[in-house]
Amino acid sequence: MSQQLHKRLFEEIDSWTLVDPHTHIDPHQPASRTLADILGYHYYTELAHSAGCPKHRIEGPEAPQDPRERVRVLVPWLKHLDNTVQYSWLVEMARELFDFPYDQVNEKNWEELYDAALAKMQQPDWEQQVLRQSKLEAVFLTNPFDDPLEGFDTTRYVPCLRTDDLVFRLHRPEVKQRLTQITGIEPSTLPKLRESLGRLFEHFVRRGARACAISLPPEFMPQKVIPGEVENFWQRLIGGEEIRPGNFASAMFAHAVKTAREEPTMPERMAYYVFWTLAELCQEFNLPFDLMIGVTRGVYQHGVFQGMDLFDSRVSLLQYAELWNAFPQVVFPVSVLASVTNQELVAYSWIFPNVLIHGHWWYSNTPSVIYRDLANRLEAVPRNKLLGYYSDMYKLEFALPKFRMYKRVLARVLARHFVLGRGWSEEQALDLARQVLIDNVKEVFKL
Amino acid sequence: MSQQLHKRLFEEIDSWTLVDPHTHIDPHQPASRTLADILGYHYYTELAHSAGCPKHRIEGPEAPQDPRERVRVLVPWLKHLDNTVQYSWLVEMARELFDFPYDQVNEKNWEELYDAALAKMQQPDWEQQVLRQSKLEAVFLTNPFDDPLEGFDTTRYVPCLRTDDLVFRLHRPEVKQRLTQITGIEPSTLPKLRESLGRLFEHFVRRGARACAISLPPEFMPQKVIPGEVENFWQRLIGGEEIRPGNFASAMFAHAVKTAREEPTMPERMAYYVFWTLAELCQEFNLPFDLMIGVTRGVYQHGVFQGMDLFDSRVSLLQYAELWNAFPQVVFPVSVLASVTNQELVAYSWIFPNVLIHGHWWYSNTPSVIYRDLANRLEAVPRNKLLGYYSDMYKLEFALPKFRMYKRVLARVLARHFVLGRGWSEEQALDLARQVLIDNVKEVFKL
Amino acid sequence: MSQQLHKRLFEEIDSWTLVDPHTHIDPHQPASRTLADILGYHYYTELAHSAGCPKHRIEGPEAPQDPRERVRVLVPWLKHLDNTVQYSWLVEMARELFDFPYDQVNEKNWEELYDAALAKMQQPDWEQQVLRQSKLEAVFLTNPFDDPLEGFDTTRYVPCLRTDDLVFRLHRPEVKQRLTQITGIEPSTLPKLRESLGRLFEHFVRRGARACAISLPPEFMPQKVIPGEVENFWQRLIGGEEIRPGNFASAMFAHAVKTAREEPTMPERMAYYVFWTLAELCQEFNLPFDLMIGVTRGVYQHGVFQGMDLFDSRVSLLQYAELWNAFPQVVFPVSVLASVTNQELVAYSWIFPNVLIHGHWWYSNTPSVIYRDLANRLEAVPRNKLLGYYSDMYKLEFALPKFRMYKRVLARVLARHFVLGRGWSEEQALDLARQVLIDNVKEVFKL
Repeated sequence: MSQQLHKRLFEEIDSWTLVDPHTHIDPHQPASRTLADILGYHYYTELAHSAGCPKHRIEGPEAPQDPRERVRVLVPWLKHLDNTVQYSWLVEMARELFDFPYDQVNEKNWEELYDAALAKMQQPDWEQQVLRQSKLEAVFLTNPFDDPLEGFDTTRYVPCLRTDDLVFRLHRPEVKQRLTQITGIEPSTLPKLRESLGRLFEHFVRRGARACAISLPPEFMPQKVIPGEVENFWQRLIGGEEIRPGNFASAMFAHAVKTAREEPTMPERMAYYVFWTLAELCQEFNLPFDLMIGVTRGVYQHGVFQGMDLFDSRVSLLQYAELWNAFPQVVFPVSVLASVTNQELVAYSWIFPNVLIHGHWWYSNTPSVIYRDLANRLEAVPRNKLLGYYSDMYKLEFALPKFRMYKRVLARVLARHFVLGRGWSEEQALDLARQVLIDNVKEVFKL
Repeated sequence: MSQQLHKRLFEEIDSWTLVDPHTHIDPHQPASRTLADILGYHYYTELAHSAGCPKHRIEGPEAPQDPRERVRVLVPWLKHLDNTVQYSWLVEMARELFDFPYDQVNEKNWEELYDAALAKMQQPDWEQQVLRQSKLEAVFLTNPFDDPLEGFDTTRYVPCLRTDDLVFRLHRPEVKQRLTQITGIEPSTLPKLRESLGRLFEHFVRRGARACAISLPPEFMPQKVIPGEVENFWQRLIGGEEIRPGNFASAMFAHAVKTAREEPTMPERMAYYVFWTLAELCQEFNLPFDLMIGVTRGVYQHGVFQGMDLFDSRVSLLQYAELWNAFPQVVFPVSVLASVTNQELVAYSWIFPNVLIHGHWWYSNTPSVIYRDLANRLEAVPRNKLLGYYSDMYKLEFALPKFRMYKRVLARVLARHFVLGRGWSEEQALDLARQVLIDNVKEVFKL
Repeated sequence: MSQQLHKRLFEEIDSWTLVDPHTHIDPHQPASRTLADILGYHYYTELAHSAGCPKHRIEGPEAPQDPRERVRVLVPWLKHLDNTVQYSWLVEMARELFDFPYDQVNEKNWEELYDAALAKMQQPDWEQQVLRQSKLEAVFLTNPFDDPLEGFDTTRYVPCLRTDDLVFRLHRPEVKQRLTQITGIEPSTLPKLRESLGRLFEHFVRRGARACAISLPPEFMPQKVIPGEVENFWQRLIGGEEIRPGNFASAMFAHAVKTAREEPTMPERMAYYVFWTLAELCQEFNLPFDLMIGVTRGVYQHGVFQGMDLFDSRVSLLQYAELWNAFPQVVFPVSVLASVTNQELVAYSWIFPNVLIHGHWWYSNTPSVIYRDLANRLEAVPRNKLLGYYSDMYKLEFALPKFRMYKRVLARVLARHFVLGRGWSEEQALDLARQVLIDNVKEVFKL
């Protein structure tokens, strides 16, 4: 009975057309060209490396360049990963998109998959096929601040201003130069800097951007910084004074819990100043500000590309109280990296009108974690404040298996906790699913 | 089978008469007078506000005074909350207590509910009806320290000395004045202060108090403070020296993780001194000391009444080790606000004879969180140390739906983990339920 | 259906012969001599004490010496513990190993059990019987660094070098003396100290040791310390200068969260120096280094023997990033004490090739916690990096019920999440079980 119920709910949910509110898609090359684009996703390279594959076989001068050979390197390691949900994405994608007939991708059958995928990917309308089969009507991007945002349909590939570089790496000459170049403003003073940031927002909003976004380390404690606190420091930075990146980085967000009585360092103050300015601009330009809270970058120094980041789960959303109090007009869709933060996220969204819950991010994007986190969200947060899921994908082919993983969990929570647990009708349960998966996304991001 | 089993267990548990060991009931007005008293509960006002209802519609000079009009403001927002368990309390209460025939409270039917509730509430024995229908034989109160505790039956409404004001706000002139007034002792020195606190305990115990209670912020690290450490500070405070509340508050419990090497500030030392004295008095007067650990007050500054408090989940019960070692004779029923602290609570109660586990508090009082926390408690803590549940209610009507929520979860844990999982008989499972819900409460609080 | 499936999986898993990769077995007295050895396990004494049994009845000069009388003291308290999983171990062991016919051990039947156990334990091949019935082919030990490792079969009882004394208590004269005695080297300088530690590794490896192990407090943040930083301090220590243990201990790992900017104290630096040296020796001698992270010793000062330790769950594996980056050749099987750290453990093992996941430790070794932690591990970490379970037992009789508890949970996770949830065959699920329970243990520890 409950299995049947789950199946009915899942199949209905799976028939809907969606918007994916956070991805890393390149709008100029949204779909994969070969299976190497699929297996090159960091989930596979980092897991293969973790299971024993040497890094130099995966990337660097000794690694093969040819896509088929790059896949050949990884396939033997898949047998160590076949328990992982990431591997299940690969198999489900292979079966659904490439008519792959097997339940395993292994050393015997991978070339069959490679060739089948290649044949599909070389069809000129492959991108449209994937979008249709995945039932995606729009896909949010993650654009660097100096992206010209040209040459693609911004209603299908919706721009989103990613601001990590501005907040954390503005002291690097190349970042300052990129900012100067795209805005035409030399940020030689704080007012000039603010003006140039405003210029970015104008550019993005004009080109259809629907959100500003940033990922943040666990130690981030944003606060209002008045210009006088950082003006001199900025002058020294911009004036080319040698503030060595090494020192700068080590003084900044030193990967550990902070106490309230520790004063922020100057580089931290500068980061908070820029961050606060971005929040002001989100208010001025009426853009939601996606906060992705809790990632620590570069923890595993010898990791593969994009396979070096981890986290310190000792973060509290209390660190954002000053921000959320200061900007009641700005909508903050919040993702948290560690599941332990989920209950705080539920509570802060239940209390703060401007704090919304956004998806299941990265290390928390596995079924047992989603189940736990989602059950808590659905039972305690107003339904109009839940943005169900985003794929975080780099290539379009991943939307289908990732969203399906989520939909299966969602159908299970609805079946157990709402239909069986509270006596809801299936129609009521599906209405709730539709709202968190589709309606809220369209409403919050004004699509 | 398992659904039948769950139903049988729940129905038996639901037939028992209970004591509610922690509420905020006003014994002079325990039941609601109109539906506005129900919907005015902060769970509904804060969730409606979170879902979009402006604060000025809910409270303040622009908000309606008339009860029916206050309900009219909130009803349109309920559709955004109908997924929440808090909303389900409202519907269950409406159906059970007011014979409301619908599954939803909405803009079409709310006046029907309002009128039905009003008719019941105006009956002279409504209070007795609710107690009977909710199967409550006694209800613990939360009394301010200067409550005269007169004019009500203290065996039905059991006094409990709430001490937050004494520990955290004794520096405020009005609090000192209230203390002087009720005890007849000017707390002009530390010995006088201690004497006046003792007088409070005498008064409460004489009037049938069964517990002392306090809620504590995450940063609280109680320690023994000798009088010499704070004597001078207290003299300055009591002598009327201008220690501005603003400075005082900001120096005290500054909303963040502390390190062991940080010395407490003087206001913190003073708070610890008073807290330690209360523990000594609990020992002297043989009163359990309810600790409710982990709330951060006033986080959302623009929130509605009682809808401003949140938490930093980075708290450890290790902060209480010195206390629990120092007072082996005092029983500490402990509640934790964040579910992440539940495993520590299980472990500390499993080790410390004087640490008991008390209910499921506030943000952890939702079904999926209770399920997880309760399963861990029941499998690892001696059964004579578990105080199952309290409602935390402000009006009597809430006991029925809140306790039922808990009983459903309890029946589920017992069915799955004990009857099916360990082969227990249903009778054994019900014995365990009876002990945690009833017997332990009566024994610990000496009823 | 699912109950049948669960039963089939469990029964197959329960038929396998195992290696237990972490215990505290004494190879010279591995099995119990009376039921007092069973009930003397700290799980029973500490829970009985927590439930109300005075400490002086359990240990110390007033406690009975006679084994039967020691059991007689504890039995009346078991009724308060019969909900706990620890109690269920006792009953399962009694029924399986001693043919005990009842479901409860109580004041009426305990002497029957005592006598039945005694009759079995006095049989000369009792040790072999238990090993056979528990299907154990090898058992890892926890050996003090100066253990001669003689007089037992080191292929059945596999030595493991336990290093807590070296890292945390080397300043104590008796520890230095033990080190001098076993190695024949006076550690009068840091090079001499390192030489003597190397001698220990030689001795252990020659006698068949398969791992080095240590338990660590939550505040431990290992870092490379150069000899120059601690040379003088070591000289003072070794030269007999009065660095009082009290001061030393209180300066060292002061039971609280640290910030990155806090400098380690000298005793901490010294501990890190020794720890780092042990990691270098693990690399040199090709030994896995078991890290058991998160225990705080001696929290409950009046607790019974081994019933005083607890934890501060605010620990992050980020504290080990420097270590794991520095020793890519060393395999680190990691246990965490608090379930809240499990998601970090999953993530760090998913990223770091040298970080493996090891068992379910102590306060996290209860069914609902294992279920949650295991589901997350199996869905996200390469299968060749999961070391399923160890018993942590002091007497052989505990392997059977503890492993069975784990196997039941494992069978449940496999049934729900893999067979039903992902469409795996039962054979596939059993292959995964076999790998995490058996194959990986043999491979990682080179058996």
